[in-house]
Amino acid sequence: MQKLLNEITNPEALRLLNQKDLPQLAQELREFIINIVATKEGHLGASLGVVELTIALHYVFNTPEDLLIWDVGHQAYGHKILTGRKDLFHTNRQIGGLSGFPNRSESPYDAFGVGHASTSISAALGMAIASKIKGDFKKQHIAVIGDASIAGGMAFEGLNHAGVTDANVLVILNDNAIGIDPSVGALKMYLTNVKKGTQKRNNIIKALNFDYSGPIDGHDIDAIISELKRLKKVKGPKFLHVITTKGKGLKQAEENQVTYHAPGKFDASTGDILSKTPSEFTKFQDVFGLTLLELAQHNKNIVGITPAMPTGSSLKYMMDAMPDRAFDVGIAEQHAVTLAAGMATQGLIPFCNIYSTFLQRAYDQVIHDVALQNLPVIFCLDRAGLVGEDGATHHGVFDLSYLNCIPNLIVFAPRNEIELRNIMYTAQLGLNQPIAIRYPRGRGFIAHWKQPFNTIEIGKAVQLKTGHKAAVLSIGAIAKNVSDAIDRLGNPSDMAHYDMRFVKPLDETLLHDIFKTYQTIFTIEDNAVKGGFGSSILEFAAKNNYKNTLNVLGIPDQFIEHGSVTELQKTIGLDVEGLAKLFSKHM
Amino acid sequence: MQKLLNEITNPEALRLLNQKDLPQLAQELREFIINIVATKEGHLGASLGVVELTIALHYVFNTPEDLLIWDVGHQAYGHKILTGRKDLFHTNRQIGGLSGFPNRSESPYDAFGVGHASTSISAALGMAIASKIKGDFKKQHIAVIGDASIAGGMAFEGLNHAGVTDANVLVILNDNAIGIDPSVGALKMYLTNVKKGTQKRNNIIKALNFDYSGPIDGHDIDAIISELKRLKKVKGPKFLHVITTKGKGLKQAEENQVTYHAPGKFDASTGDILSKTPSEFTKFQDVFGLTLLELAQHNKNIVGITPAMPTGSSLKYMMDAMPDRAFDVGIAEQHAVTLAAGMATQGLIPFCNIYSTFLQRAYDQVIHDVALQNLPVIFCLDRAGLVGEDGATHHGVFDLSYLNCIPNLIVFAPRNEIELRNIMYTAQLGLNQPIAIRYPRGRGFIAHWKQPFNTIEIGKAVQLKTGHKAAVLSIGAIAKNVSDAIDRLGNPSDMAHYDMRFVKPLDETLLHDIFKTYQTIFTIEDNAVKGGFGSSILEFAAKNNYKNTLNVLGIPDQFIEHGSVTELQKTIGLDVEGLAKLFSKHM
Repeated sequence: MQKLLNEITNPEALRLLNQKDLPQLAQELREFIINIVATKEGHLGASLGVVELTIALHYVFNTPEDLLIWDVGHQAYGHKILTGRKDLFHTNRQIGGLSGFPNRSESPYDAFGVGHASTSISAALGMAIASKIKGDFKKQHIAVIGDASIAGGMAFEGLNHAGVTDANVLVILNDNAIGIDPSVGALKMYLTNVKKGTQKRNNIIKALNFDYSGPIDGHDIDAIISELKRLKKVKGPKFLHVITTKGKGLKQAEENQVTYHAPGKFDASTGDILSKTPSEFTKFQDVFGLTLLELAQHNKNIVGITPAMPTGSSLKYMMDAMPDRAFDVGIAEQHAVTLAAGMATQGLIPFCNIYSTFLQRAYDQVIHDVALQNLPVIFCLDRAGLVGEDGATHHGVFDLSYLNCIPNLIVFAPRNEIELRNIMYTAQLGLNQPIAIRYPRGRGFIAHWKQPFNTIEIGKAVQLKTGHKAAVLSIGAIAKNVSDAIDRLGNPSDMAHYDMRFVKPLDETLLHDIFKTYQTIFTIEDNAVKGGFGSSILEFAAKNNYKNTLNVLGIPDQFIEHGSVTELQKTIGLDVEGLAKLFSKHM
Repeated sequence: MQKLLNEITNPEALRLLNQKDLPQLAQELREFIINIVATKEGHLGASLGVVELTIALHYVFNTPEDLLIWDVGHQAYGHKILTGRKDLFHTNRQIGGLSGFPNRSESPYDAFGVGHASTSISAALGMAIASKIKGDFKKQHIAVIGDASIAGGMAFEGLNHAGVTDANVLVILNDNAIGIDPSVGALKMYLTNVKKGTQKRNNIIKALNFDYSGPIDGHDIDAIISELKRLKKVKGPKFLHVITTKGKGLKQAEENQVTYHAPGKFDASTGDILSKTPSEFTKFQDVFGLTLLELAQHNKNIVGITPAMPTGSSLKYMMDAMPDRAFDVGIAEQHAVTLAAGMATQGLIPFCNIYSTFLQRAYDQVIHDVALQNLPVIFCLDRAGLVGEDGATHHGVFDLSYLNCIPNLIVFAPRNEIELRNIMYTAQLGLNQPIAIRYPRGRGFIAHWKQPFNTIEIGKAVQLKTGHKAAVLSIGAIAKNVSDAIDRLGNPSDMAHYDMRFVKPLDETLLHDIFKTYQTIFTIEDNAVKGGFGSSILEFAAKNNYKNTLNVLGIPDQFIEHGSVTELQKTIGLDVEGLAKLFSKHM
């Protein structure tokens, strides 16, 4: 079946092939990707789009001596398969298996670990300058970056620096007009005009002092090889504009590019997505998106902002219904936050939805533009906590720590869908300060979450369960694991359970009660133990000179790899069974 | 003396003037700025450069209804003086006085608080979109941004979004080819070519869909007014390229633009800088810069990186001596960090020097590109802790908190110059992980700091003083206040003092000793109490079930305004006297 592909145990073998056989190899590689992803799930469209480019790069360049960096890395499945990981590829994104992204610890062919967007140019330039310093003037340093990622400010910073060096950097723009959702912004419009031939005068890339070539057809393998061979001889910063089709080779994936970015299981021969067992539960994302739309229909000052995640965040509901009040600003978290701050100065109520891991990109803007000016921006931090198969680059496990030290900011984590709705309702009634609301990826626990709104008192925690031997203080949706664990105890009535709701401000009145009532207290959070919720409880105890025994549970001080959320929780003892065991030891 | 200026109590009064009188007003404004800054200190060159532009903006636009945002804000002195703050201007940057930057709480004419670079376009766009949503199609939203700041990635993100809106945003590029140090990068080269007339074809701004005009002479007040009047009628995103001279009107300031950015006290009539009382002590910055050069002369793998602060950080010593190994990458903290990561993958030893407050801009890159890959980048965080007169936007008081939760990272704070030298020496010998070294702005305490190098054992603290009643655990240069405070105690031998040196890894062996020896323990840091060093000590205590009494001292959970470092420390009890009082209460 995969006659050629089976022989390619590494790129050296690939380079021995005759160029005329490469289209056949491309077809085999595409089939292999489709077949595996159809059953094992993962990111499909991006890798299908760069099959020819991937083959051509390894064919022309001397990898891994020449250094190849895939921006974001969704598109690197072909690269992984051609660089010795074909037989392991069925373990993709599974615990203990291959990472869904290039990863330096996995292979010498993965020159730089990726996951977040727009890093590749800076990394490649760093490598290229290093080669120069070490006297290696032949080594090539290649960044492959999509048109959505190159619009991120960081990519511009990299181009701006590279353009005044004589470093051997080749930036390949993989222009398919889409990231996860369709690309946006003036640069995208510019690139469209370049493709159409209506933008001839003002070449941004040339203006930044790059040797620009293209656009060329990214599915014409001979054209790419010929251009790469030419560029290999060009010294200094160079830029190749390649046009590709995301999902290339699978009809449905080409036609429904958003859905087939990561389609779940599908029929490899027809491309039809296999229907999943329907769930009675709704994703937190949809609870957010539908609730926001509902609130915005009643409050004309509400606006919505997402940096490039309309589908993932479900802001799309509002964008479709109210295109003038909901904005996809592209991969631009920094801009998203300060845009929200600007809107808030004029009395709008911005819901700025950013994945927890990506808010790290806008940390300064949260401090300097929002909190310092005490502007009532409502941050909705999606995919907080462990996210599962996307792994270490994508877990949102630092937000409670990095937000906790910011003055003026309210930090809230809903334990379920109703709490999420109610805090969103409360926030848009008008707070005089910013708030961050962090909630996990995936489904909730309550079928009938669409209940009438209730206000949540700021800084007010709730007791979920009485008990007389010890107390668990949880924050956010990990409350479910705690409840289930308590249910498994020999005597569940031993353990009290509180949902603290707010990391700041803390409910100090209730905390005084708790510290006076229970000698042993557990805190638990789906966040780093260092500097997070538990740490705030320790500070409270120290300030008030309480000497209770405190057990701080959460993500230990290490990076957590990929796997299902349940599997990962198990490895760090935050799963139901682990918690039950721990609690019973302290009874 | 200032016949016209004295009448301008607000911009409405300005708008009543005859246009032909404005050059006279410009001269008076310039003189006023020079006279005050000459004695009160502050930022000089930037404001002198935009005197005409400032007058023209308030003359043409209906401020504060029309919203005017000054990027960074170093250049806003003229703006402050013309908007009702002339009589307070002598209090600039003093405690309780005017802020050195535009500040929303200070004046309705300060549409957006600034301090960090590249935020103005996003903020102005947010305001402009808000106006549109509210049905106000006449309001103007103006961002004035320098050529150094517009090269920051965030500014590009703002342009990229603005270009596809029909929002009334006017971006004015104040192009003087310098930030604090001369501008760098491909965009700067492009702008230079535009000015020379050698760059005609490829207009980046037009390519981003802006109505572009310029370049015009920023000191020709009639030309600016005429162009602003025209642009006032143009709908949608527009861009005016203005050429100015930093320091305009004071010969020395024009000729020595770096020195006269913030020259300290000078003779207002001659421009000569007044010589300061020489100090026997050296700035930490110079200790860094000279030590790095010394190390780099012996270790060929060392490279240096600064995002636009060669003079401020003193990386300039290495840049001058080894231009191929020390890099000013412009206002591009994100790029700086990932560039360093790329270099580290190739065996170089990057010293990446970033002000503590600006590393907030590259938080994700520290986590995702450096720490996750465990790359041995050496971060030197300058201006950590309270920085004094620059105030709330510039204090580096969050770094210990936001770095503490990052796995793999070593976090060190030297208590003096010799410790800074020795940790730099130790780090370049080769750590297998990244390290952050944070030190304060300003002078140290040791005249003969240039001692032979010694290795510092990672994770090893030191006892500075014995004592028998209580122990103080300090981190970093605040140790000096602690020592001085202990000296003032009735019985200094009561109090032991430890320099913990490392926030992570903690010296757990020594901590066990301390917790077993002293019932009462103080921790002190020049950083937020929330999530910082003290918080790590609390975690240690909880983990090991110690019940000692812990007092966590540091920056409380609020933003700290401007003033001298000593004055600010006094307000929060971290000054010598405050500490002595506190310690004696606990004896």
